[in-house]
Amino acid sequence: MSSDSVGIVTPELIHFSDPLPLSSGKSLPCYDLMVETYGTLNAEKSNAVLICHALSGHHHAAGFHSAEDKKPGWWDSAIGPGKPIDTNLFFVVSVNNLGGCHGSTGPTSINSETGQPFGPDFPVVTVRDWVNSQAKLADRLGIERWAAVVGGSLGGMQAMQWAIDFPDRLGHALVIASASKLTAQNIAFNEVARQAITKDPEFYDGRYYDHESLPKTGLSLARMIAHITYLSDDGMAEKFGRSMRTGELSFDFNTQFQVESYLQYQGEKFSTTFDANTYLLMTKALDYFDPATEHNNDLAKALSHARCGFLVVSFTTDWRFAPERSREITDALVAADKDVCYAEIESDHGHDAFLIDSPRYTAVFRAYMKRVANELSLGVNDAR
Amino acid sequence: MSSDSVGIVTPELIHFSDPLPLSSGKSLPCYDLMVETYGTLNAEKSNAVLICHALSGHHHAAGFHSAEDKKPGWWDSAIGPGKPIDTNLFFVVSVNNLGGCHGSTGPTSINSETGQPFGPDFPVVTVRDWVNSQAKLADRLGIERWAAVVGGSLGGMQAMQWAIDFPDRLGHALVIASASKLTAQNIAFNEVARQAITKDPEFYDGRYYDHESLPKTGLSLARMIAHITYLSDDGMAEKFGRSMRTGELSFDFNTQFQVESYLQYQGEKFSTTFDANTYLLMTKALDYFDPATEHNNDLAKALSHARCGFLVVSFTTDWRFAPERSREITDALVAADKDVCYAEIESDHGHDAFLIDSPRYTAVFRAYMKRVANELSLGVNDAR
Repeated sequence: MSSDSVGIVTPELIHFSDPLPLSSGKSLPCYDLMVETYGTLNAEKSNAVLICHALSGHHHAAGFHSAEDKKPGWWDSAIGPGKPIDTNLFFVVSVNNLGGCHGSTGPTSINSETGQPFGPDFPVVTVRDWVNSQAKLADRLGIERWAAVVGGSLGGMQAMQWAIDFPDRLGHALVIASASKLTAQNIAFNEVARQAITKDPEFYDGRYYDHESLPKTGLSLARMIAHITYLSDDGMAEKFGRSMRTGELSFDFNTQFQVESYLQYQGEKFSTTFDANTYLLMTKALDYFDPATEHNNDLAKALSHARCGFLVVSFTTDWRFAPERSREITDALVAADKDVCYAEIESDHGHDAFLIDSPRYTAVFRAYMKRVANELSLGVNDAR
Repeated sequence: MSSDSVGIVTPELIHFSDPLPLSSGKSLPCYDLMVETYGTLNAEKSNAVLICHALSGHHHAAGFHSAEDKKPGWWDSAIGPGKPIDTNLFFVVSVNNLGGCHGSTGPTSINSETGQPFGPDFPVVTVRDWVNSQAKLADRLGIERWAAVVGGSLGGMQAMQWAIDFPDRLGHALVIASASKLTAQNIAFNEVARQAITKDPEFYDGRYYDHESLPKTGLSLARMIAHITYLSDDGMAEKFGRSMRTGELSFDFNTQFQVESYLQYQGEKFSTTFDANTYLLMTKALDYFDPATEHNNDLAKALSHARCGFLVVSFTTDWRFAPERSREITDALVAADKDVCYAEIESDHGHDAFLIDSPRYTAVFRAYMKRVANELSLGVNDAR
């Protein structure tokens, strides 16, 4: 294990017994959140950073679960000793969102009212609901104010929502490869994914747990589609081009090009490790996010009460959440007279770029987090 | 019926009893081609124009099949008296490609060797195979040389292949919204579509005819995905934006946004009117097209023996076959010292733009076809 890893980490399940009211009007009577933390909370409790995950993410953002574990957490490139989110300075909290399938209360959890898994009865949750649950988590951890709330993609939406709903409870919002709302094309891709899942005969109206089945075909298709939108056209061209598996055209319907087998593998792997009902919920949270609607579609107005600093980052070949979307956020923040830095990073990696270490991205990310640390004088009187 | 319509047209089925050797090494012992023609072949047989169709197209390109028929052929915007392909001057031939599902021999046809529909046993056909079958059709019609071969998308690939394989048999190739080969991203979208179809339990390994079933779910998903790639992000934003069906968030998994119901409708309509095995074949023909491979991946070399003039047209928001792809074709033609005009048309309509009348596109198309007519002195000594 390298010296810039947080090492072996252990997730913790935290129970909340007070009801959580939801945007839908429903409420969860009680719930659990699965959490990982990295680094140490200082005496002032001023150095806490919240990591918000994206569509298929979870609480395991950094480090390893055992010495044998080969794959680190999903944002290990950004979190660790000496990394942009420096665990020598910051206490990092990473949480699996409600509705998830990695330990927090979600469709696979037992509904105490029925003794059966929630399945399709799990309520539709929104970005705002998640932020409310994360605020309860902060209360529990004794964190009055986050040094920063950080997220990419759907995670960036949560950072924005934090700035809007709890202006006094965060110092900075880092909104990476995100958008203030989905476009019609984004929604369209989500809808095809939902149709693929819900039309799978193994879906059983979301009660596949009862039938000991899994809508693997549908979930696999959903993942394949999503995967195409995570990569750039150029990135795919560079990675696969028109390379064939055997070098010769087979003139049949077997897998011919390497990009086909890559996608099939990605789809199949995902279809047995992720919950289909959770996938549906996550896509709805994405579709519904649009904080400007409450303010006559004026995003600057929606952000007008924010008091934190903002870092907005986009990637040139990201066509899922294109740089234009990040510029909209930046323009709204400028119009609302907020403190905002915007960086558009050259990258071939499309939307996935936010998960990948690259010199300029890492430099910008590191510099911004250094500023956050400096403002709080973190590390100054510290022998570490 | 307006005066610029070709009016009521009747398709004709033409039988070919000689075998057609295919790229795969297989051959079709005999076959039928379903054809429509518009306008009149002149005495010199010099005014014939071949229309090549795209993925889901067919022979019915212009006019109506009856007085009650509400929807004209798929390229009625371009073909008719006074239209860019002016049927007062040109004799237009439009053919359903082999493997199709609109009358030409394809998977739904009876295989004379078994007495059953071909189904999945129909051989994989390539753009070159289609062009060979179209050459046989030209022979049958007594057309030694086309005034022009015209196609959009996959149709443009056929026009290019004509220029390469039969340099003396066409005066001009019009290559619209096309590409000299698919990108990895294009192939990836095709593969997701194929997976959706072949993993549908109603597909029965392509023998759904025997089971009196149809892989409607899979074909519908394939069409939804394709449809997203036919429209531009901006075009979708303009057409649908985030408009909701009811105006309120429903917090369930019913259809929420108008773009969702639009896509669902498009998918369902297609799934009962198009043959799934044909869809698979068409996507393979797309994947396989890459005339440069036979020439060390040098497209200019592949086109070096062409003797026709070329019009290459692209549309700014087309991301399925982006302008960059058309510029590659144009650059190769310039490098090969060919006579080429290139027009990049501003449009919000994405890939679909090639099917839609718009001022600059229509002007360029019309001007080029006028040049074709002038070269042949069409209409000059003609009282029409």
